[in-house]
Amino acid sequence: MGLVRCQLGVSLDGFMAGPDQSVDNPLGRDGERLMHGWRFAEPADPVDEAVMTEAMNNGAYIMGRNMFGPIRGEWHGDWRGWWGEDPPYHTPVFVLTHHEREPLVMDGGTTFHFVTDGIESALRQAREVAGDQHIGIGGGASTVQQFLRAGLLDEIHLHIAPVVLGAGERLFDDVGDPQLEQLEVLPASMVTHIRYRVVH
Amino acid sequence: MGLVRCQLGVSLDGFMAGPDQSVDNPLGRDGERLMHGWRFAEPADPVDEAVMTEAMNNGAYIMGRNMFGPIRGEWHGDWRGWWGEDPPYHTPVFVLTHHEREPLVMDGGTTFHFVTDGIESALRQAREVAGDQHIGIGGGASTVQQFLRAGLLDEIHLHIAPVVLGAGERLFDDVGDPQLEQLEVLPASMVTHIRYRVVH
Repeated sequence: MGLVRCQLGVSLDGFMAGPDQSVDNPLGRDGERLMHGWRFAEPADPVDEAVMTEAMNNGAYIMGRNMFGPIRGEWHGDWRGWWGEDPPYHTPVFVLTHHEREPLVMDGGTTFHFVTDGIESALRQAREVAGDQHIGIGGGASTVQQFLRAGLLDEIHLHIAPVVLGAGERLFDDVGDPQLEQLEVLPASMVTHIRYRVVH
Repeated sequence: MGLVRCQLGVSLDGFMAGPDQSVDNPLGRDGERLMHGWRFAEPADPVDEAVMTEAMNNGAYIMGRNMFGPIRGEWHGDWRGWWGEDPPYHTPVFVLTHHEREPLVMDGGTTFHFVTDGIESALRQAREVAGDQHIGIGGGASTVQQFLRAGLLDEIHLHIAPVVLGAGERLFDDVGDPQLEQLEVLPASMVTHIRYRVVH
């Protein structure tokens, strides 16, 4: 059975997004600094490339509604995600929401399914399509926190950026006392990638 | 001229100590988990040993009063520090305090000097005795934050533990927007050591 895992950029003070997230700025004020210098570097650091390729090696994804669309927007109408017609997932993606909506078939193998009955249901559906492949849990923080609190997350991959944000959305707020084990550290030039196992 | 640097154990959510710090528990509730598994491991991981040996390679130290003694205690009387008669510093140590006190000469080369006129004065005195050697800035968080805000810190060495504390003393609270550059990553088995330069 594949792992349930998430991969997230975080600041040294534990934020995965800055304050004042909006349609124009989904990572919030200064949030793009979490990615700056490594995620879109030219030429890319081979370590970063390998990490991101492996991070996208999933058979399905689950994401919160804020990752799929504007936080306060009414995207359940005709919003088609942030990523254009060919999103980078190339698998089924289960979007947690309170609004029912027909599946949205995109180019390149991505289909967004809208799940209104919670994370366990989303995970069950994701497992059915993913088979033995991994399942990627997207943001926002509250989605990751829900999976962590429910004991449904197997691994957390952090990209620790040399940045202090000072405010925003904290990754580990209100998650109780998860037991983590450091599995692997991959130093890149501008960021440090660390893989943690959640001990169940 | 030596570097002004600090080395600190931090949790993934950015805490350098847990809540409810006390005489019996100077790192606060669960705070010892920041060190657990690596700082006192037997046998020690050679990476951790090398990092800690280098971290103590300083010509002088500056620390806050909370690191020298009990937080609410009247240590300016006859308190002689947490470390017994032979503290691990083996250099002059400048303790920031509001209470004047004669220097306290310990065994093994450590002398505690009590500085009542602020961090610049402490740094000037530390530089005089350290010469070309580095100066280590000890905790607590507020001391590190003061040096960071004043632009007087050159390097921050973090020991990032696979721990979520959820509450306590945050390292990077209220420090504005320091520009950091990742210099070196040293993966150990239970912790990741990262060295950052503060860009002035």
